[in-house]
Amino acid sequence: ASPGPTMEPGPPAIREGWFRETCSLWPGQAMSLQVDELLHHQRSRYQEILVFRSKTYGNVLVLDGVIQCTERDEFSYQEMIANLPLCSHPSPRKVSEGVSRLRVRGPPLFKVSLPDLYNPEGKETLTSSLSPVWISVTAFALSLGGGRGSSFRGPREAPVLGKRAAPSPDGPHVLTSPHHPSPGECQWLHLDLIKEMRQFCKSLFPVVEYAYCTIPTYPSGQIGFMLCSKTPSTNFREPVQQLTQEQVEKMSLKYYNSDIHRAAFVLPEFARKVSAGRPALPCALRSPRV
Amino acid sequence: ASPGPTMEPGPPAIREGWFRETCSLWPGQAMSLQVDELLHHQRSRYQEILVFRSKTYGNVLVLDGVIQCTERDEFSYQEMIANLPLCSHPSPRKVSEGVSRLRVRGPPLFKVSLPDLYNPEGKETLTSSLSPVWISVTAFALSLGGGRGSSFRGPREAPVLGKRAAPSPDGPHVLTSPHHPSPGECQWLHLDLIKEMRQFCKSLFPVVEYAYCTIPTYPSGQIGFMLCSKTPSTNFREPVQQLTQEQVEKMSLKYYNSDIHRAAFVLPEFARKVSAGRPALPCALRSPRV
Repeated sequence: ASPGPTMEPGPPAIREGWFRETCSLWPGQAMSLQVDELLHHQRSRYQEILVFRSKTYGNVLVLDGVIQCTERDEFSYQEMIANLPLCSHPSPRKVSEGVSRLRVRGPPLFKVSLPDLYNPEGKETLTSSLSPVWISVTAFALSLGGGRGSSFRGPREAPVLGKRAAPSPDGPHVLTSPHHPSPGECQWLHLDLIKEMRQFCKSLFPVVEYAYCTIPTYPSGQIGFMLCSKTPSTNFREPVQQLTQEQVEKMSLKYYNSDIHRAAFVLPEFARKVSAGRPALPCALRSPRV
Repeated sequence: ASPGPTMEPGPPAIREGWFRETCSLWPGQAMSLQVDELLHHQRSRYQEILVFRSKTYGNVLVLDGVIQCTERDEFSYQEMIANLPLCSHPSPRKVSEGVSRLRVRGPPLFKVSLPDLYNPEGKETLTSSLSPVWISVTAFALSLGGGRGSSFRGPREAPVLGKRAAPSPDGPHVLTSPHHPSPGECQWLHLDLIKEMRQFCKSLFPVVEYAYCTIPTYPSGQIGFMLCSKTPSTNFREPVQQLTQEQVEKMSLKYYNSDIHRAAFVLPEFARKVSAGRPALPCALRSPRV
């Protein structure tokens, strides 16, 4: 069966050669990427899967209209979510596959199971077109521990990732979103959610810190991490394991180094206030007018 | 004369209620903002001026298709370009108007001259619709020292700003772009230009440092600053004037504090390497593929 234009109308988010990412979680703004070639488009049992080769960001994976990762900038998110907790832990023992690729390069401790993309057709297509990103994607997929269903939405919405990706049961955890499947907590967009998350985490862990990295294809250009530890003496802001320049180069790190680890916790004043427990949000974030 | 659709076709960058910012300086990507109301659209002698009320970023000033500032996020850029050099200087004496509004609140030392927007019609419209941003805009306009012409493109392209906004002739300078009218040097987009700028500045000043802040409506979500000093002992990374929490609150700062001052100079590994003088750019920035 040769696919015709009426059989496959194409992704509605791509118009005139541009993909546009709109979402109610970042109203009034939309990042657009220019499309060189549509590589895969499929509405699976669980979600809409879209892969295209972009003009300047390499291959891009989109789930349900939301950019999950691009080949050009995924490293910043991956390196930070891996190394912020790992370098904060005195003796990391258990890491999941995608994270270990970046950090430990040991054998995977969890079996990869892809709750949605696992079907042979989808897997093959995505694997071939997203080579370096693919392993990162599996890291998030396995965070569900074999669970299948619509709760898996890819990297940005892996609510269980942190708990399973934690280096040890008593060590630091990274929660991308413990109780709310938000696609990314950004200081410029979701300060109220960050505050809510922080309060929730504080009810479970004595030490809770928020850090962030910059990444152009996430809404507003950055993404945050909530780091939690059961050990009251944990100080996330000062890495226990400090990487030498040689180690950084040997691990081919492109974003993380020990200085950026420390700087990632330093917030602009409007976000610092909220992180410090101030009740009110600054005007600029309640309303667009300053 | 009632304006009809044929008389005023409207800005070409606004389609179906969305403004889209495309530019050859950030190929393949475009930030879009949803438009609530078009407030001003004019092709002046020098450039296309567009002001609209956006859905979630307040009023927005666009020159020649490029977002110059929005009411929601302009404070981060303004506060950083003002306070990074001012807090690095032991005794700042001369500051220009827009910067002094944020920092010193003294009388302006330079007369404001708007090379393009100065015409009564344009000025009135912009002043009324961009109240808090307006004074910031004048800060950049005056950087030309009364010069008129197409070289003025607003905040992002004020090549002479740094030299005139410098606190003292011998103190730190901020250069947004000394010899190349680029609309914003971003680590994720313009690493080669940053390197080139840095080398040029090093030929003039013994101390040159690159810092950045996050700002959602700039391309890729951040903007950089090149700080230069004639005094070899200057250490931009450690503010000479450390603001107390009381001072930060009294000055109503929403982005800058002394910790973010320090953190602004800490770069991710791929940018740090280039800033440290490495010849080669990382693959991820030469090509979209990692």
